[in-house]
Amino acid sequence: MSFLDHIRACNAHDLSGFRPFELDGHRLGWIRHALADELPGVDPGFVTTAERVTIAPEIQDFEARSTLLDHAAQFLVERGTIKGLRGEHYPILPRWGAEPLMRLDRAAVAAFGIESFGLHVNGFVRDGADAGSLSLWIGRRARDREIAPGQFDNMVAGGQPIGLSLDENLVKEAQEEAGLDAGTARRAVPVGAITYTMEVPEGLKRDRMFVYDLELSSEVIPVNTDGEVEAFALWPLESVADSVRTSGDWKFNVNLVVTDFLIRHGHLTPDNEPDYLEIVRGLRQ
Amino acid sequence: MSFLDHIRACNAHDLSGFRPFELDGHRLGWIRHALADELPGVDPGFVTTAERVTIAPEIQDFEARSTLLDHAAQFLVERGTIKGLRGEHYPILPRWGAEPLMRLDRAAVAAFGIESFGLHVNGFVRDGADAGSLSLWIGRRARDREIAPGQFDNMVAGGQPIGLSLDENLVKEAQEEAGLDAGTARRAVPVGAITYTMEVPEGLKRDRMFVYDLELSSEVIPVNTDGEVEAFALWPLESVADSVRTSGDWKFNVNLVVTDFLIRHGHLTPDNEPDYLEIVRGLRQ
Repeated sequence: MSFLDHIRACNAHDLSGFRPFELDGHRLGWIRHALADELPGVDPGFVTTAERVTIAPEIQDFEARSTLLDHAAQFLVERGTIKGLRGEHYPILPRWGAEPLMRLDRAAVAAFGIESFGLHVNGFVRDGADAGSLSLWIGRRARDREIAPGQFDNMVAGGQPIGLSLDENLVKEAQEEAGLDAGTARRAVPVGAITYTMEVPEGLKRDRMFVYDLELSSEVIPVNTDGEVEAFALWPLESVADSVRTSGDWKFNVNLVVTDFLIRHGHLTPDNEPDYLEIVRGLRQ
Repeated sequence: MSFLDHIRACNAHDLSGFRPFELDGHRLGWIRHALADELPGVDPGFVTTAERVTIAPEIQDFEARSTLLDHAAQFLVERGTIKGLRGEHYPILPRWGAEPLMRLDRAAVAAFGIESFGLHVNGFVRDGADAGSLSLWIGRRARDREIAPGQFDNMVAGGQPIGLSLDENLVKEAQEEAGLDAGTARRAVPVGAITYTMEVPEGLKRDRMFVYDLELSSEVIPVNTDGEVEAFALWPLESVADSVRTSGDWKFNVNLVVTDFLIRHGHLTPDNEPDYLEIVRGLRQ
């Protein structure tokens, strides 16, 4: 295992197994060929050619297009591609910041290869004796989670559903996952983003994670309120780095967020990490 | 002008005009076709085919290969591709951190499309009244510089010559360019890297800039000692951001270093900058 191995795992994919999903000139997603060929049978609003999947031009508005996608999502459950719907919808955007063209159940996002957005918060504490020495708050995910049970996670993280601003989502997730009040959550500083494209059984996971750093005083102890986290612990950066570098104990994409933290805070350097440049470039593919 | 325009300018190139320069299975650089075809006439140690330029297998050691490149560099001066040699040599590395395979005069690096390494230091001051409010030290380059005369630059920046460690180069450049002592220079924290590939008249500029942040107290005033900087000024981040966003007043690649600083310190955010994701990804191409 190495930092680069985690980055490679999050970016392993082969687009030749997929067909573009396009609308209004925007390439919105990627759909496996078999599903692409089935979709017009699910709803004739889907138009599949050898080159792409798109939506019939007479289906114009947000609600009608979203209803079409609801039919597809339901079909994905019947087909066994996904276990069930989440009842939480993600926006389908031509690009970040634009108006949503449609919404799609979160569970079906990878099957359509849609870009999904989320936020990860690095909660950290500065050592009083040595301001350059940092510790990072780590959550261990509950054992009953479907994704990455028992693995290590950021203090706060969450997908970006439709209808919430990033700020609102940050405050909500910080409350639910770590018991932080809104004032504390809003002190989190946006410090960049990590992007990856990972082939998964359902399709293609194309995540864009907005990264925040939140410096906390040593008196603040995170408390989980939504059952997602079993326990929190405060780890010195050296232990964090060793664990990420050598183990598979971390949720797959959290490896990348933490590696970025180690880079940005000078723990990994061009002198001590031979893969430095490949890591820095690999975190935004 | 926008942040993204500067990133695009630093990455404008067309590889179809170039042929790979390879050695021992490593793709080390890119050479314009016309030069590739001329090199065997300059020195029969160069072997040019339609696919690549390489070095004859009997020329094995570092010194012999570097002598061959010296001949090519001298030819580039006679040919008018470069004005003259710099007498400062850059390493040719299969990858960062590896042993150099050869050395090449700095002036000839772009003609061979070799990766070149350097460091940029963001010297900044935290506002006492509001810890979240930062100011950045800006240098205005001397008017007699060949590159970017009179344009804005980082407090400290320099290419990485062969034979110096990054740490040694940091201390040397911080002394020469800003009059900082070694202890102050070594407090600079490595925080990432920016990479770009830019077509220039001589060939292809493939820069890998290691980025450092150096927090300074308001008492530290940089003083240039090597004639590269005409004057320093301490700018609030808001002014820095406005100037980079709207003007062509900054040295081309410093736009990218400063944009990265604005991202990492939460001045540009996913909410206030519509090109946020494209910027974050564009800074490491």
